[in-house]
Amino acid sequence: MKLEILRNNYEEYKNKVAAYTLALNSNSFGIATIAPEAGKPFIGEMNSILAGELFSYSVAPENIKMIEQLRDKSDDDMERKECELRLRELYNTAKVPKEVYVDYQLELAKSQRIWEEAKESDNWPLFKDELVSVINKTKHLLTYYDIEGSSYDFLLDQYQMGMNTKKYDAFFETIKSELVPFIKKVVAAKQIDDRPLFTNFPAKQQAQFTEILKEALAMDVQKVYITESVHPFTSFFSSNDARFTTRYHESSLMSAILSTIHEYGHALYVLQVNPAFEKTSFFSEIGYAMHESQSRLLENHVGRDRGFWQLHYPTLRTLFHEQLRDVELPEFLRMINKSEPSLIRIEADELTYPLHILIRYELEKMIFDENVSLDNLDQLWADKYEEYLGVRPSTAGEGILQDMHWSAANFGYFPTYALGSAYAAQFFQQMEKDFDVQETIAQGNFVKVQDWLRENIHQFGASKTGDELIKDVTGEAFDPRYYTNYLIKKFSNIYQL
Amino acid sequence: MKLEILRNNYEEYKNKVAAYTLALNSNSFGIATIAPEAGKPFIGEMNSILAGELFSYSVAPENIKMIEQLRDKSDDDMERKECELRLRELYNTAKVPKEVYVDYQLELAKSQRIWEEAKESDNWPLFKDELVSVINKTKHLLTYYDIEGSSYDFLLDQYQMGMNTKKYDAFFETIKSELVPFIKKVVAAKQIDDRPLFTNFPAKQQAQFTEILKEALAMDVQKVYITESVHPFTSFFSSNDARFTTRYHESSLMSAILSTIHEYGHALYVLQVNPAFEKTSFFSEIGYAMHESQSRLLENHVGRDRGFWQLHYPTLRTLFHEQLRDVELPEFLRMINKSEPSLIRIEADELTYPLHILIRYELEKMIFDENVSLDNLDQLWADKYEEYLGVRPSTAGEGILQDMHWSAANFGYFPTYALGSAYAAQFFQQMEKDFDVQETIAQGNFVKVQDWLRENIHQFGASKTGDELIKDVTGEAFDPRYYTNYLIKKFSNIYQL
Repeated sequence: MKLEILRNNYEEYKNKVAAYTLALNSNSFGIATIAPEAGKPFIGEMNSILAGELFSYSVAPENIKMIEQLRDKSDDDMERKECELRLRELYNTAKVPKEVYVDYQLELAKSQRIWEEAKESDNWPLFKDELVSVINKTKHLLTYYDIEGSSYDFLLDQYQMGMNTKKYDAFFETIKSELVPFIKKVVAAKQIDDRPLFTNFPAKQQAQFTEILKEALAMDVQKVYITESVHPFTSFFSSNDARFTTRYHESSLMSAILSTIHEYGHALYVLQVNPAFEKTSFFSEIGYAMHESQSRLLENHVGRDRGFWQLHYPTLRTLFHEQLRDVELPEFLRMINKSEPSLIRIEADELTYPLHILIRYELEKMIFDENVSLDNLDQLWADKYEEYLGVRPSTAGEGILQDMHWSAANFGYFPTYALGSAYAAQFFQQMEKDFDVQETIAQGNFVKVQDWLRENIHQFGASKTGDELIKDVTGEAFDPRYYTNYLIKKFSNIYQL
Repeated sequence: MKLEILRNNYEEYKNKVAAYTLALNSNSFGIATIAPEAGKPFIGEMNSILAGELFSYSVAPENIKMIEQLRDKSDDDMERKECELRLRELYNTAKVPKEVYVDYQLELAKSQRIWEEAKESDNWPLFKDELVSVINKTKHLLTYYDIEGSSYDFLLDQYQMGMNTKKYDAFFETIKSELVPFIKKVVAAKQIDDRPLFTNFPAKQQAQFTEILKEALAMDVQKVYITESVHPFTSFFSSNDARFTTRYHESSLMSAILSTIHEYGHALYVLQVNPAFEKTSFFSEIGYAMHESQSRLLENHVGRDRGFWQLHYPTLRTLFHEQLRDVELPEFLRMINKSEPSLIRIEADELTYPLHILIRYELEKMIFDENVSLDNLDQLWADKYEEYLGVRPSTAGEGILQDMHWSAANFGYFPTYALGSAYAAQFFQQMEKDFDVQETIAQGNFVKVQDWLRENIHQFGASKTGDELIKDVTGEAFDPRYYTNYLIKKFSNIYQL
């Protein structure tokens, strides 16, 4: 077939895939935000049908063949690379029978409902059997793939291409050996009293500060939409359309602020990908650790930093003049950077956060590579919290039931949270070499940060791997010590160690 | 093929059609409410692809054949009837080549953008050429159908099955002969000063009253979602999920209130259809006039009536105590029922409203049946306003450019607005025979109204035609004099004629 025809056919293919994907996103975003309660099961049912349609179409043998031909005949390096990236995904998916795929989707929908119920009633036994079923079905699904190495290696690679247990073991070994003893020192040091951040902050004023964040972070309101949902998340509709949610907790000032900054990091990434990549795998296949590096970079290196609050704390203080009357900027900065071992990951501070991930990583490895019995998984969970963080959950709700990831079979996802934070530290160190970031932000020139991120990272989308990007941006291979050193230096400073 | 297999296949067919339809709704609802501006063209483009997919699948010859077989073999009357109703639609659609169908969808998307621009800049020549193109493409499209009678007859039947120019001519003749002279009398009578309703009503308090309306109208918040958009509309997601929008005009108290009540009429209809009809044509093919009869019934016979405001006016007055301090209930009722010929349909009062529709009906007939030149359509429009309502638009913006329907090729849609209002009057007369509606509503028992509507009208969905429903509910054939008599009696009373 002529190159021109192949290109047209591939255009049509990408369009259809994009249309189904948008439909799924649009429905899911609705479920999480505005859909009336009684309408949700119908939307879920329809989404499993649409997902099945997308599945059938995207892995149809004639379509895979067409993409292979384009890859072989193309005279354009990027085009070949994009076809390659897409085929890598399709080869795996194509091996799964459609019935197995759709059955798996339905199982996951059910599992998420059961998890919600179990979490609400703090009932681990209720969820345990369902989790066993999800794990077994996931293992069964994996039998269809050609997997080199372990099952868990395969899953890790799905969330961030190029990653495996060998690399993660080395990474987490550094985290463990550097941070566990350091955290003990922090725990022993004089504690920070951050109670003023947990009084009463009406949602209405918090929402006003979200409006201020739009300007402070130079959000393009033509392309960004923010609303509320129970769990904050970001959804990508196109290169011109990113939507994310936040949630206002009236007893916690920083929760919505940091979550908004975090989610905007995800949104900004997608909005700054080269628009020519629209509908391609370079757009949709960005690794989860890379994505998290951008949200964590904004959340921690900007949203918890002096430069940012030097400029915006006065405004925050005006909005909450009663509550923050006695809190001067230096104290505020100490409060928002307080570290204290705790049970709930999403409320964890920056320093102890990677240990929450370490625990999940170790448990996932046991589930997939060691076939650990799930009967005592909640106790194993508790033991590890005690070992690494010195705290022990007294209920499943503040232990193993806290995250929904396993109910959605997102095994291999958690580690990207820690890896992303480490990428962020290494990227940020480079940014600081290039210009005085803190001072630039303090002067209100956040656009310069965005431009640097676009030029160095965002524009490339998934056309470079995480490892390639780190190398190209910093001139060095990935090194987790940038992350641990950054944390140790920062918190030594805060806790005067 | 065995009946059981046919039924299974038809189930699968209905599921897929429902999934595509939901995706289109979900995307469109997003465009109208939350999608960031820059993201809208992408969603529009993707929706034309999904519409094309739905088209291909729904009219595929093997699917049509399958439905025909089910109709022929079924032993269930309702099943046969539903197949018949769906086939009626499919036979027409199937005759259009997919390229023509998709090209038409893209033309309409373009046309709506041009209309928006033309309306904003009050530029009729800008829109005129595009309208000519839409009309010609619509006429071209109609050449694919087997049409008995005129093209316009065909279009009218599309929006309300069983309707044609002959019936509408008779209907509008009654409207014209009864109402035009009566409106002249009203114009000559002493006018009502309704300025207190057009002072300043902050959106925030208006939104509070919307919350009160939820209770007042017994909305099931598990199934109903309300948000804001430029033009209020209702979107149906499933038998458990109806979403509608409103818009707050701070200088006009009743605009959002009546619009909310109106849209709820649409939502309630769908939520009260027999849930067994989910995904069937009995659910999706409800005629536009029937639908409008339910929104107009709530808007006019409830939302502008004494019983309703006897109960809720005190609350409204508390919310706007400054603005309504001097307005007692009897005056308020006169104000919200003021009649005055005006130029803008959507702001028209209940009495003059059908003449706005009459004008559009006459113009549409000229366009389709008489091939009138479009060069002077704006002047023809103005002439008819002068003739029937005694007012003349000075710009296209307050004349021919005011409605978006023609840009979406919704020719044949307008007449259902008047017909629906007439249906509403005849239905309501019957409801009043069955119980004392005003008193029941005044006592806060709105559920009784909802139950009556469900039992008599809603539950049947499209399994009965408008004519059949009128007959079954009232024991008589449709008679427009219920409508004109109701209007003349009501406004004679208000204007003491």
